[in-house]
Amino acid sequence: MFYHDGGKLQYEVKVDKPDPIFAKQLQQAIGGIQGEIRVALQYMFQAFGARGPSKFRDMLLETGTEELGHIEMLATAVAMNLEGAPLEKDAAADADPMLKAILGGMEPQHILSTCAAAMPVDSDGVPFNCSHVYASGNIAADMLANVMAESTGRILAVRLYHMTNDYGMKDMLKFLIARDTMHQNQWLAAWEEVGGKEAHPIPNSFPQSEENEDVNYTFFTLGKDNTVPVPKGRWSSGKSVDGKGTFTTEPMTPHGKKPDLGYAKPKSGAQSEQIKE
Amino acid sequence: MFYHDGGKLQYEVKVDKPDPIFAKQLQQAIGGIQGEIRVALQYMFQAFGARGPSKFRDMLLETGTEELGHIEMLATAVAMNLEGAPLEKDAAADADPMLKAILGGMEPQHILSTCAAAMPVDSDGVPFNCSHVYASGNIAADMLANVMAESTGRILAVRLYHMTNDYGMKDMLKFLIARDTMHQNQWLAAWEEVGGKEAHPIPNSFPQSEENEDVNYTFFTLGKDNTVPVPKGRWSSGKSVDGKGTFTTEPMTPHGKKPDLGYAKPKSGAQSEQIKE
Amino acid sequence: MFYHDGGKLQYEVKVDKPDPIFAKQLQQAIGGIQGEIRVALQYMFQAFGARGPSKFRDMLLETGTEELGHIEMLATAVAMNLEGAPLEKDAAADADPMLKAILGGMEPQHILSTCAAAMPVDSDGVPFNCSHVYASGNIAADMLANVMAESTGRILAVRLYHMTNDYGMKDMLKFLIARDTMHQNQWLAAWEEVGGKEAHPIPNSFPQSEENEDVNYTFFTLGKDNTVPVPKGRWSSGKSVDGKGTFTTEPMTPHGKKPDLGYAKPKSGAQSEQIKE
Amino acid sequence: MFYHDGGKLQYEVKVDKPDPIFAKQLQQAIGGIQGEIRVALQYMFQAFGARGPSKFRDMLLETGTEELGHIEMLATAVAMNLEGAPLEKDAAADADPMLKAILGGMEPQHILSTCAAAMPVDSDGVPFNCSHVYASGNIAADMLANVMAESTGRILAVRLYHMTNDYGMKDMLKFLIARDTMHQNQWLAAWEEVGGKEAHPIPNSFPQSEENEDVNYTFFTLGKDNTVPVPKGRWSSGKSVDGKGTFTTEPMTPHGKKPDLGYAKPKSGAQSEQIKE
Amino acid sequence: MFYHDGGKLQYEVKVDKPDPIFAKQLQQAIGGIQGEIRVALQYMFQAFGARGPSKFRDMLLETGTEELGHIEMLATAVAMNLEGAPLEKDAAADADPMLKAILGGMEPQHILSTCAAAMPVDSDGVPFNCSHVYASGNIAADMLANVMAESTGRILAVRLYHMTNDYGMKDMLKFLIARDTMHQNQWLAAWEEVGGKEAHPIPNSFPQSEENEDVNYTFFTLGKDNTVPVPKGRWSSGKSVDGKGTFTTEPMTPHGKKPDLGYAKPKSGAQSEQIKE
Amino acid sequence: MFYHDGGKLQYEVKVDKPDPIFAKQLQQAIGGIQGEIRVALQYMFQAFGARGPSKFRDMLLETGTEELGHIEMLATAVAMNLEGAPLEKDAAADADPMLKAILGGMEPQHILSTCAAAMPVDSDGVPFNCSHVYASGNIAADMLANVMAESTGRILAVRLYHMTNDYGMKDMLKFLIARDTMHQNQWLAAWEEVGGKEAHPIPNSFPQSEENEDVNYTFFTLGKDNTVPVPKGRWSSGKSVDGKGTFTTEPMTPHGKKPDLGYAKPKSGAQSEQIKE
Repeated sequence: MFYHDGGKLQYEVKVDKPDPIFAKQLQQAIGGIQGEIRVALQYMFQAFGARGPSKFRDMLLETGTEELGHIEMLATAVAMNLEGAPLEKDAAADADPMLKAILGGMEPQHILSTCAAAMPVDSDGVPFNCSHVYASGNIAADMLANVMAESTGRILAVRLYHMTNDYGMKDMLKFLIARDTMHQNQWLAAWEEVGGKEAHPIPNSFPQSEENEDVNYTFFTLGKDNTVPVPKGRWSSGKSVDGKGTFTTEPMTPHGKKPDLGYAKPKSGAQSEQIKE
Repeated sequence: MFYHDGGKLQYEVKVDKPDPIFAKQLQQAIGGIQGEIRVALQYMFQAFGARGPSKFRDMLLETGTEELGHIEMLATAVAMNLEGAPLEKDAAADADPMLKAILGGMEPQHILSTCAAAMPVDSDGVPFNCSHVYASGNIAADMLANVMAESTGRILAVRLYHMTNDYGMKDMLKFLIARDTMHQNQWLAAWEEVGGKEAHPIPNSFPQSEENEDVNYTFFTLGKDNTVPVPKGRWSSGKSVDGKGTFTTEPMTPHGKKPDLGYAKPKSGAQSEQIKE
Repeated sequence: MFYHDGGKLQYEVKVDKPDPIFAKQLQQAIGGIQGEIRVALQYMFQAFGARGPSKFRDMLLETGTEELGHIEMLATAVAMNLEGAPLEKDAAADADPMLKAILGGMEPQHILSTCAAAMPVDSDGVPFNCSHVYASGNIAADMLANVMAESTGRILAVRLYHMTNDYGMKDMLKFLIARDTMHQNQWLAAWEEVGGKEAHPIPNSFPQSEENEDVNYTFFTLGKDNTVPVPKGRWSSGKSVDGKGTFTTEPMTPHGKKPDLGYAKPKSGAQSEQIKE
Repeated sequence: MFYHDGGKLQYEVKVDKPDPIFAKQLQQAIGGIQGEIRVALQYMFQAFGARGPSKFRDMLLETGTEELGHIEMLATAVAMNLEGAPLEKDAAADADPMLKAILGGMEPQHILSTCAAAMPVDSDGVPFNCSHVYASGNIAADMLANVMAESTGRILAVRLYHMTNDYGMKDMLKFLIARDTMHQNQWLAAWEEVGGKEAHPIPNSFPQSEENEDVNYTFFTLGKDNTVPVPKGRWSSGKSVDGKGTFTTEPMTPHGKKPDLGYAKPKSGAQSEQIKE
Repeated sequence: MFYHDGGKLQYEVKVDKPDPIFAKQLQQAIGGIQGEIRVALQYMFQAFGARGPSKFRDMLLETGTEELGHIEMLATAVAMNLEGAPLEKDAAADADPMLKAILGGMEPQHILSTCAAAMPVDSDGVPFNCSHVYASGNIAADMLANVMAESTGRILAVRLYHMTNDYGMKDMLKFLIARDTMHQNQWLAAWEEVGGKEAHPIPNSFPQSEENEDVNYTFFTLGKDNTVPVPKGRWSSGKSVDGKGTFTTEPMTPHGKKPDLGYAKPKSGAQSEQIKE
Repeated sequence: MFYHDGGKLQYEVKVDKPDPIFAKQLQQAIGGIQGEIRVALQYMFQAFGARGPSKFRDMLLETGTEELGHIEMLATAVAMNLEGAPLEKDAAADADPMLKAILGGMEPQHILSTCAAAMPVDSDGVPFNCSHVYASGNIAADMLANVMAESTGRILAVRLYHMTNDYGMKDMLKFLIARDTMHQNQWLAAWEEVGGKEAHPIPNSFPQSEENEDVNYTFFTLGKDNTVPVPKGRWSSGKSVDGKGTFTTEPMTPHGKKPDLGYAKPKSGAQSEQIKE
């Protein structure tokens, strides 16, 4: 069960000079695949479905709850950046290239659909789709999904930081960037608690003796012939990262033959030419 | 540029006893978020946009190309599992609970839309959406995204392996599970090549001195009061995983105040009650 | 900013006899358009963008926070209903029509993708899409959107109540149905606080003298000719509900003529036949 | 069954000075969630599935048919606003900030995909998704959904009216705004015909004695502690709006305990650490 | 502008024995990509944006209007097939494999979300997405898109015809199949009116002298080497179908070299390793 | 199974003067419904599910493989056009209308989400959705779907050609336009191999004697009355294009009556007013 603090913000949100194009860019941090709705729901769904040691569930709930507060901060920042956005067209607007550029570069729905407030969409106006809430139920996989989400989240926050020169916005982003630093570390720590790289291959509850052991540590190359150079790296030879095998490199060749699905069935909807009587 | 092998399969696909409900489940491995379309396109888009050391681009291209062959294998497996699926309704079908269960449990579009073949959709019939092609351009983040994709991919393949008792299908899945083992290792290896956990926080090109250093290694708890237990773990104290800070644990408190967006603008579309004259 | 209660549930969730088909149906209440993710985010986004009297923002925050707890309850209920779901196929399963029916009728991803836990999707497996978070910024329109959401929410909860005979599930649904009763009343009350039906047409900040007053209280009929009966009701005559006009009924006739877009431009991509030289 | 009038428009559509950026904004009224495709299909699906008194079905059909004509008008308006849009790039275009602003601010697909015509997408280019066709089969809920749709529809039309200074466009919008006025009244009238606020809670066919009567008229507050002010209003005390209860206000406390889903099943895909032997 | 006939159906819809699983399958014909919403909107948007000879616009409007009536018929058929669908669960239902199979095989939202009526979704419950409304503005391309839509539409109707043995449903489908026959012919006829195959390549308004004439009639093969057989057919040699060239067959070889995007920019969000100082 | 050529491009990609707005437009050719991801996957899925004469499967595989190379070329072109895109905001940028126009007109995610590289989205940032991979399993329908895809593909490439004046980009597009010319011809040739227009109505495996022969060659008009002119053309009289019937023209009249779904069931979720006791 959840509570609130009467709308007090986790960190101060100030906008010195509203900028409707930056408001559009900020939307990515709300409703983008790297955004706060995603992580808030992701950590919650991981928590709500957690099985096994309870401390993971508990920790997921902490940080999922924190992310809710980030949605709140960013939605506030969007609304503040829309103060002063053009709500009306007059002859002047039509003749001024700067106004034209602002109008054309804004999220149109910020003036058409919300009375100047944030939406749960990305910077292209594409609504957040909950298929991006990754919650596999496998704790190691989920911790990695979280490291990854926070990594792209921090890239995004850094990019936004460079795209504004507003003091208030930069200050808010410094806070969010720092939280992403912590969260990357936190999920890495949790991944290490369940074994880290030695816990691979995920899921470790499936015996590797049942997988095809001829190909489970082979880096296959698929260059069309010998003229294509083979990329070498940590992955191409030596002990595997999980410590359970040895990397080899081989050109891939077909193990199967060309499939033949035969003819279509009479009432399957195919053309007569595809059907053999 | 790409080539093919006349349709020869990377690994043999045989179905001993076709099963249309398993055909539906296999769709998850084609068009699900953990499926092969996703990884094929993901590795390709990461390759096509790669900047920096070229070996990463080269390796991405190898494995992206391999995954194309996995789509081919799985699409073949779906078509084979649909051999013998009910294409017609007769009185018998209506009275037999087993036939009814099969009809109701199938992907309806396998009989309505494809003449008994695979679709680029998941096991619920939801089409694959390319927003799941994660390609941030940051090589460390991308390698992690790939470890994660292969982790959930192997979970899925393992689950499918348990849901069939067909010898041919189990054999194909043993191959795919083994490849997921390799690919988890491969992307972990690539992540280690660019620094592994010490390369965090991602992006490492942003100076941490610009982030808010008061909160960048703090595990914040958000329990409503002192009665809520605090989850402890590797994340709550000690050296941070990236080696650059020290974990602390603190209850979060609001740093900002409740925002006040004031009144709405006269022509913004709000009600008069929200507008101050 | 938000807090939690260590995962304590707003109301008890007990499942006496797990039922994986009911787990699938319950998904509608989590990720359906009438579900809890929708209302939680809707009330929050309305709050975060609220302008005008602050009590609306405050109230929205209260109930948005409550709905977060409902997601938690329902996700727990789904996980509990998946206890004992088939995780493996053996010969027996293949021959038993009841097991076949359960397997075919389940959400396949509950066994393939989540290790037996809830997802942010509806009962067809379609992920929740945040375009359903209605937050127009106009307080009267938003309150109505909320009444409507809770109305379909209660219909859904009632339908789920009829589809189970599990004591624990029925008890949980009685709680949720009651909350929907309150919330319908609450949003109606808020709508009345800003004028209720007299506050229409929304937005009331636009002067009706600027709309086309010839057609603003006319019920137009579009039957093809006089043989089509005209539906009569409260809407066809008498004082309008907003108190500002009088309903009349008229057959609609075209006020405009057939448009002629003329020929296509030479380099527009049209066929030559569509282009006039 | 439906008929047409050879393409004559319900109301005149004239564009004095084509404006491709306004064409993009107009798309919201075609394919946005507040747009005409939505209401046309919504009223039709409500009609096609209507059970009970036939006059509602009949009325829904009337207005659904009218909305089809609105799609036609707006699609025409978009095409007319695209007359003269840039179809070619030359050196001049590259150097003129005004042309650059127009090019960047247009819907790119208006030049790339349609030979200068409308699309069934919103002002961000996001295609209309029929999940927004709300048709619950419950007549009172559906009438409310319609009031709401017309309320946001009128907000949108008003906003568009302010964003243009073209005489023809303003005249067309005056007509559409007026129709939204009527339609808000019409659906409110229909809602009152089936009981209006006294018909709540919807569905009224479910006996309230079966809901949890301890919490069905309680406004729950979820402030984390006593320092968070409680919002007071029509919803916090007094007779409930449906006339069937009395509003009270109470702080919410957990009625349930922290759930424990236990350990994961051996073959569920979880990590070994989550599985108890 | 559009009219209706008071809800009279274009063709009789009778259901002798309601079948909720068939109701689910019928949804494909309403909201599937081959369904009636698609063609109705497609023909309308093509009409609304038509430029050039007006008879195409006029004809598109005729058939778009007809398709609206098909949505109506199919929605009625779905509702009728849901008569008698299980609305309640009792102990009996739990023990009867036939009832279980029906419950599991139904569209769950037909009982949860619509009070037993149709939705604008496909047979998997995926909502129709208007990106499938193909309207390019090029008349020849659009006519082909329509032939194709009616071709898959007829395949679907034929498949549905085989999946029912209800007299009324078969009779309705005979009507729809016949209309698809006409519509395939009609769009082929329209395509021939604008030149048919000789009008290719579309758009014919672009001079072929500006395309790369070395590769515009070459069938490229991409087998990895000489061991892969080359498919021969009408496409591999002889006069091209448009009459403007001669087909040749050649193995494709790269005309370009491996691209090198170089290093990433310092503030682009990449890792330091990707950035050259 | 597939191979690659070490990243060598099928055709040279050069950008003389990077243009971030053109990068956004190019996205349509990657992830638009007319784009290369669509055709690559479409031809592959058609191949993977092909039944009947094997040469179609073989040919589909050839061209599907070619299209993979086109994705690669276009993704490279996007990345090259983003060289020099604004990665930082400074005071100058804020004051220069040309910079403002570029910033507002770019795909924001090209700077926020990808470190300046392509995404699998269209020119509005809407991710490609695999429902556009048309693969019906009926060979004639699929060949037509392919002609259509290449027709709109060439329209798009032509439009892009006009929107740039960069020599390198124009040269690349000349190549792609030429390939679209070939592919239109190729799929038309394949369609002719299975009978061309005489093979209609598709599917030809369904006996026309089972369709309603009263209406299978009738062009129905739906003008509301005699004042609406009837469009005449090749479709309105004469021998049908498939050679199997004769076109006639008739005004459509309802063959069915107004449906009556009666009252709602007691526990269906409807209002009491819709339920008859």
